[in-house]
Amino acid sequence: MTNPATDDRRYWEDLRLGEVIELGRTTLTREMITSFAREFDPFPFHLDESAAKASLLGGLAASGWQTGALCLRLLADSFLVTTASAGIVRVRNLKWKNPVMVGDDIGGTATITELSRSEHHPQFGVLALDFDVSNQRRLPVLLMRLSVLVAERPVGALA
Amino acid sequence: MTNPATDDRRYWEDLRLGEVIELGRTTLTREMITSFAREFDPFPFHLDESAAKASLLGGLAASGWQTGALCLRLLADSFLVTTASAGIVRVRNLKWKNPVMVGDDIGGTATITELSRSEHHPQFGVLALDFDVSNQRRLPVLLMRLSVLVAERPVGALA
Repeated sequence: MTNPATDDRRYWEDLRLGEVIELGRTTLTREMITSFAREFDPFPFHLDESAAKASLLGGLAASGWQTGALCLRLLADSFLVTTASAGIVRVRNLKWKNPVMVGDDIGGTATITELSRSEHHPQFGVLALDFDVSNQRRLPVLLMRLSVLVAERPVGALA
Repeated sequence: MTNPATDDRRYWEDLRLGEVIELGRTTLTREMITSFAREFDPFPFHLDESAAKASLLGGLAASGWQTGALCLRLLADSFLVTTASAGIVRVRNLKWKNPVMVGDDIGGTATITELSRSEHHPQFGVLALDFDVSNQRRLPVLLMRLSVLVAERPVGALA
């Protein structure tokens, strides 16, 4: 368990509507794309270059679920690791705007757009985060709204 | 390219509102859970048994993103492989209802709840699929609505 007297994570009370989180960036390799697709999304346009060129995507592209998973990882490293988060509970309106191809570098921001109390978990609040993620050519690749549970500050924790 | 004369995949015209797709089932191992979490969702409740027991989840549980990815794989194997699908374009209202723990067996259905024309892609329709996925104790674990692009039947394809 975390020691409240030395816990310097951010709690529910420390978050503000409109705060913009810089997610950082990550680059997708061919190996990342094909290994994820083999496990979860085994379609020719995620596995084979010539089939991908004949598809709507126009070339070997990542599974959208992998792009989402990488956005989650960026959020973990840039924000959740220093926040008293108990996990993500909901995703609203996830859209893929442009394919993510081999070698593309993606990143962007997540903005706090809602703060509310949890209906189901006393001592937790819910945070909505709007993701705006684009590639190195500034083309949008992913939009979504995540709901994240964040603990209230416990008695005895540093303010 | 697919030869239209021998292509027996299902097209947009072959799908019906209310059709229920049996997704089949899959079982999560500890190794599956921790390897996905290390890559995409590196939180103690997805990696470490004792930290997980102290969390809201109550034990080592899969990343919700992994549960979603496995549902996608079940859909691929049960439905998309025999459908002229060009990919998933949107996710609405994804909710995780109960944690998925080591050894849990998950599965369920996806129901066709909307059929519409694609605004952006001529010759494609959009299919909405409502997922209802539960564990071996019949507790719900995941609900979501996916939008999937499906091609219209080309001239010359088998009816």
